[in-house]
Amino acid sequence: MLLDNLMKKLDEKKERIIEIRRYLHEHPELSFQEEQTAKYLQDFYEDVPVDSVETNFGGDRGVVVTIQGAKPGKTIAIRADFDALPIQEETGLPFASKNEGVMHACGHDGHTAYMLVLAQTLAEFKNELKGTIKVIHQPAEEAPPGGAIGMINAGVLDGVDAIIGIHVMSNMKTGHIYYRSGNTQTGRSYFKLVVQGKGGHGSSPHLANDAIIAASSFVMNLQTIVSRRINPFDTASVTIGNLDGKGTFNVIKDSVTIEGDVRTMTPETREIVESEVRAFTEGLEKSFGVTCHLDYLNDYPVLNNHPAVTEHVRQALELAAIPEVEAVLETPPLPPSEDFAYYLEKVPGCFFYVGAMPASGEAYPHHHPKFDINEESLVISAKAMAAVIASYCDGNEN
Amino acid sequence: MLLDNLMKKLDEKKERIIEIRRYLHEHPELSFQEEQTAKYLQDFYEDVPVDSVETNFGGDRGVVVTIQGAKPGKTIAIRADFDALPIQEETGLPFASKNEGVMHACGHDGHTAYMLVLAQTLAEFKNELKGTIKVIHQPAEEAPPGGAIGMINAGVLDGVDAIIGIHVMSNMKTGHIYYRSGNTQTGRSYFKLVVQGKGGHGSSPHLANDAIIAASSFVMNLQTIVSRRINPFDTASVTIGNLDGKGTFNVIKDSVTIEGDVRTMTPETREIVESEVRAFTEGLEKSFGVTCHLDYLNDYPVLNNHPAVTEHVRQALELAAIPEVEAVLETPPLPPSEDFAYYLEKVPGCFFYVGAMPASGEAYPHHHPKFDINEESLVISAKAMAAVIASYCDGNEN
Amino acid sequence: MLLDNLMKKLDEKKERIIEIRRYLHEHPELSFQEEQTAKYLQDFYEDVPVDSVETNFGGDRGVVVTIQGAKPGKTIAIRADFDALPIQEETGLPFASKNEGVMHACGHDGHTAYMLVLAQTLAEFKNELKGTIKVIHQPAEEAPPGGAIGMINAGVLDGVDAIIGIHVMSNMKTGHIYYRSGNTQTGRSYFKLVVQGKGGHGSSPHLANDAIIAASSFVMNLQTIVSRRINPFDTASVTIGNLDGKGTFNVIKDSVTIEGDVRTMTPETREIVESEVRAFTEGLEKSFGVTCHLDYLNDYPVLNNHPAVTEHVRQALELAAIPEVEAVLETPPLPPSEDFAYYLEKVPGCFFYVGAMPASGEAYPHHHPKFDINEESLVISAKAMAAVIASYCDGNEN
Amino acid sequence: MLLDNLMKKLDEKKERIIEIRRYLHEHPELSFQEEQTAKYLQDFYEDVPVDSVETNFGGDRGVVVTIQGAKPGKTIAIRADFDALPIQEETGLPFASKNEGVMHACGHDGHTAYMLVLAQTLAEFKNELKGTIKVIHQPAEEAPPGGAIGMINAGVLDGVDAIIGIHVMSNMKTGHIYYRSGNTQTGRSYFKLVVQGKGGHGSSPHLANDAIIAASSFVMNLQTIVSRRINPFDTASVTIGNLDGKGTFNVIKDSVTIEGDVRTMTPETREIVESEVRAFTEGLEKSFGVTCHLDYLNDYPVLNNHPAVTEHVRQALELAAIPEVEAVLETPPLPPSEDFAYYLEKVPGCFFYVGAMPASGEAYPHHHPKFDINEESLVISAKAMAAVIASYCDGNEN
Repeated sequence: MLLDNLMKKLDEKKERIIEIRRYLHEHPELSFQEEQTAKYLQDFYEDVPVDSVETNFGGDRGVVVTIQGAKPGKTIAIRADFDALPIQEETGLPFASKNEGVMHACGHDGHTAYMLVLAQTLAEFKNELKGTIKVIHQPAEEAPPGGAIGMINAGVLDGVDAIIGIHVMSNMKTGHIYYRSGNTQTGRSYFKLVVQGKGGHGSSPHLANDAIIAASSFVMNLQTIVSRRINPFDTASVTIGNLDGKGTFNVIKDSVTIEGDVRTMTPETREIVESEVRAFTEGLEKSFGVTCHLDYLNDYPVLNNHPAVTEHVRQALELAAIPEVEAVLETPPLPPSEDFAYYLEKVPGCFFYVGAMPASGEAYPHHHPKFDINEESLVISAKAMAAVIASYCDGNEN
Repeated sequence: MLLDNLMKKLDEKKERIIEIRRYLHEHPELSFQEEQTAKYLQDFYEDVPVDSVETNFGGDRGVVVTIQGAKPGKTIAIRADFDALPIQEETGLPFASKNEGVMHACGHDGHTAYMLVLAQTLAEFKNELKGTIKVIHQPAEEAPPGGAIGMINAGVLDGVDAIIGIHVMSNMKTGHIYYRSGNTQTGRSYFKLVVQGKGGHGSSPHLANDAIIAASSFVMNLQTIVSRRINPFDTASVTIGNLDGKGTFNVIKDSVTIEGDVRTMTPETREIVESEVRAFTEGLEKSFGVTCHLDYLNDYPVLNNHPAVTEHVRQALELAAIPEVEAVLETPPLPPSEDFAYYLEKVPGCFFYVGAMPASGEAYPHHHPKFDINEESLVISAKAMAAVIASYCDGNEN
Repeated sequence: MLLDNLMKKLDEKKERIIEIRRYLHEHPELSFQEEQTAKYLQDFYEDVPVDSVETNFGGDRGVVVTIQGAKPGKTIAIRADFDALPIQEETGLPFASKNEGVMHACGHDGHTAYMLVLAQTLAEFKNELKGTIKVIHQPAEEAPPGGAIGMINAGVLDGVDAIIGIHVMSNMKTGHIYYRSGNTQTGRSYFKLVVQGKGGHGSSPHLANDAIIAASSFVMNLQTIVSRRINPFDTASVTIGNLDGKGTFNVIKDSVTIEGDVRTMTPETREIVESEVRAFTEGLEKSFGVTCHLDYLNDYPVLNNHPAVTEHVRQALELAAIPEVEAVLETPPLPPSEDFAYYLEKVPGCFFYVGAMPASGEAYPHHHPKFDINEESLVISAKAMAAVIASYCDGNEN
Repeated sequence: MLLDNLMKKLDEKKERIIEIRRYLHEHPELSFQEEQTAKYLQDFYEDVPVDSVETNFGGDRGVVVTIQGAKPGKTIAIRADFDALPIQEETGLPFASKNEGVMHACGHDGHTAYMLVLAQTLAEFKNELKGTIKVIHQPAEEAPPGGAIGMINAGVLDGVDAIIGIHVMSNMKTGHIYYRSGNTQTGRSYFKLVVQGKGGHGSSPHLANDAIIAASSFVMNLQTIVSRRINPFDTASVTIGNLDGKGTFNVIKDSVTIEGDVRTMTPETREIVESEVRAFTEGLEKSFGVTCHLDYLNDYPVLNNHPAVTEHVRQALELAAIPEVEAVLETPPLPPSEDFAYYLEKVPGCFFYVGAMPASGEAYPHHHPKFDINEESLVISAKAMAAVIASYCDGNEN
């Protein structure tokens, strides 16, 4: 009943969703700097009959909107992120980014667009709703420590019974929705190691302590973490993405900065990797007589979808029989990390994936300068989230 | 006779030498960009009774001055370099560099100062001279390929019988002069290797080809050149001074640039190192499936002092009994390279070292932001060079 | 009906199974040398009313027994292996190995014991059987290339519709049975690399070509296969178990022999590892000027249980309600390799696992000198296999 | 006078020298096991009019013979070593080794042969001698800790004013004699490192701690000692001659034994290398969590010829004008180590080199199974040593 109404309304507002998405795409802002976007959200809700709009929630420009149903019920949070990436767009789209070096290359423009229109629609039907809907517009998903933490610390999950999120995926077929129970996206750790040796002239290495040598030995040793310390049936990757030993050819480098990225699928593996990185750092000091400064930060946790909520979501999606949705399928775990995982550490929930492969079939990966999505995926996202909301909050349900 | 006169005159002009040195020190210019310095030299010779002044010799602003003795004799070239270094001076001297980020941190200001005054003095005595003195003011000693090559190619050594050069040394006691016969300063090679892999995301290493790993393996393998391929009784050093793998922590690096410096004391060893660097480059391509682009340049050769000329210089210095000179001593080979070596490949000659340790005893090494010299060393240099010139060109000698 | 009868009979023969197992345990023989064991099998079947006993099947002393049911039906193969390991037993059991340095440390004694008694029992009930039972007593499971290949080449699978095997597992609880559909045990590859350099005296490394250096670089580079070339969600291990650079401290080693072991869970990953090992070998030659000889052998494939057969087995085990069996559970994939995988490449089948943890709870791993099993697992194995057979061959079923 | 007599006598005894050398060559004995050789020496001196023969000197079968001159004077020690090597001879000589796997492949047979005949000759002329000659027949030069130490500890140098030794050299032209003042042969250090990890199965590396990985990392790191810690103008070599990681391909190695050899030319460099090996060992423990046991032994010191004694020897050789000697030349430093260096730590002396290249010009290096010497070098050695003795002890000299 409710769902039918929501669906009909969302169909009518499809063009509006696309319009908003294109506006946001044209005006992307970097994580923790989303001033105009936050303003846009605030303006949007001016005329929308929601029950409250809290701005600058958590101090980083998050926007939290409450829609109070007519009848008592559960509190369901739904979340969309709204930050963009430090990438120079190369799509050639008419609504391509107007901000030099910044691009919505991960679909957060779409997340926000469908969420705004969905929130508006839900507000219009709040008399038919049971319980409370909390709409979380979150900044800074892309940059550590992630915008979720600030919002959680500011109490965004207070009283929330379950939280649901969606990511549009350019590499999944439009019309497919994917879910997974349990550990679904990797946890991430970041580390920065400064190796301090002693500079000198290339012709007198014995008077210096070559930091590039020590750094290279460290990188080679580090490979043994994944190759020998991790169960071959488990998952881990350790990447040195930055090895900054920039210098002059004939001057022995006094200091090298290394930055690394770690992905794991369980807290135990995460601990093994950290402990090994620390051991190799200590070993480097002893071996080469360098001084090391290591910062090691376990940031986004493993994204762990709650089995019961996930099953609930799956059933709701199946029952909804959304016309644009061909199939609801299980996905294998996904390599990237996602700060939605922080919410899932606090309350049960589910993060699922809406196929957004362009009609051409040519899909650039997320974070690519030519990344694009099929905008059809946005109305699908809106309807899919509506279906989940309805399954929790349909006033007729009892 | 001649020598006594020269000495006396140089004593009188000591303050002038220092004055020139300080002016040049205040106005340093980088290698191959020495416009004002070249102009200064040209201006200096305006009123000096030399026989010819050729400017922009070799195309890089070298200045070559000829002083024709009254009687026939040998042609002796004497050389001073005049470029400075890309270093921000930190001496706090009243005549410290006025050019941001540029500094005479290797004593070339002093070389030029003593040489100008010596040339002037020689010109004043040219009636007493036998043969020809060619004064070579050379640019760009500090930067590959070195200023010497251009001047040699332009014919600066045509008709020259011997060439003599001096370097002031902050780490040698003022009052000491050092010489060495045969191989005396290292030859240098430079290489640049670009390792091209394939970028990607840290969570999916198998879809990328990590250039940082390949580069680190290369650096480790490279150590075996000195440790295993070079005769332990021979000399070689191989330094990677630049390992530019600057990137983002979670993005697998697609490309790394490596720059290296090689020092050797014989042409054979130079060849071994080059051949090994090439082998490790080829091996890297096969091992890691990366594409490598290697530029390998053998630049400054081993500085080889001619035994007979060196012995002649030694005897001339001993006989001159310069009051400020305590001792004339043999030096072990010196680590740095020097483009004077190019001249010595063409004509017999000798490059020797004049102690310039500050009176305080606190000596910063060459190329250090606090590098300084004892200015006493400049009149010593002028007298020492005068002694050598006189030994070749004294009109009374027969 | 049939199953009830088989169960009852097997209960009666439980002591006989244990007796046989202990006899075999006392008389273990190495892979491809199982003369007495083969003789024992042959003797056992002398008085058993089976339809045929083929000895030395495949040329390596395999024994294949056919039991022809009274009614037509499928041909089901059941397999037990009978070789032992080159391990000195340290169990202190009264029936410990009498053969110096040889031990049944993997439970094959138990496999053979239950299988003999089960075959005997099936033969006694053959009038009630539908179809054909082929009992495969296989030698040499432990040693490459494995005994299965010879038997397959000799036609042991001709006409076989499905093949079933059991492994008793000391680390799984007695009373539990484990199964898995699809890829269940790793595939294995073996390689041997001889690195040929040039010997010499430690004081003159430049006259030699140190094979130990090249070998060490190879080992370090090899770690990057698992760390960077394999999907973190996939499985692979690469082990150098033998690095033979045994020599004299001051003599530069001319040659090093390396032997490696590779485990993978898909044919694609197997190919990636082989191709990388070959690349690193080629790179080693180029890098260090050594000559390499590489033998690379892909032996036991990934053990792939057929989904339909596995589901059939699971249901049969559930329905059988064997009193000693507490639970029938899914297992995650298992690290070791198993030559039963060769059969599964040819015909559909299922290899499953019977818990055999000693009652004490103290379980030594397979291939450990103190390895032991709970003999209760043997009658469980017999009954479980009987249940599967009955599900295929129960004459009453139609 | 004395020298003339000695020369004449030695010419007469040339065949005897060769006869003794061939006998010893046929009967080689390993270091510290030279029973028959010591017996042979003792027997030889039975009828020789020396003043004392001390056997088993120092406990390892050294033989010390004293020849007391008629007049007072200095005490000069002359030393010859008499042990052989664990090498299977392949020369095909008629007097090749009769002892399986043992060979005089370093010329000590020749040293002993000329020394015996020289001692006999000196004894015959002792009335013409001034001072005392101490003939040191030393065992075990080839094996650490070297035979010299025991003899020194037992007092062989008591009262000795200078000590002289000779080595015949197959790679130096027969007829040439080489000397060098100061540091002449490398000092040697030996180390043994046991790396203890934890064994396991190749399919489960995370349950083990792979000692082969740790050992390989150690070997690679070790290269940086010579490449980065040693002055390029100085000398050092570090060789891992034994890397014993012998094991089974699919069993993770629990322990690896490493043995290394170090050569240096100064005590300072020796200390740097030791300190670096210790640092890398400690670093290995921290990096890989292995347990390391390191034995580090500085054995044969740098062989340091006393300048004054060396000059004395050079002059004596020049003045002697030995007919077979074409030239007395300075040699560059020599790579091998030599336990004569221990004597030179205690008393001034000189160790010099007598060319022994076979007449064919085909010279196998020392320690080669086909090593041979030109026997002409033995009478040259006898005469050269006689010349030195005479220069110190000629009774007519005053």
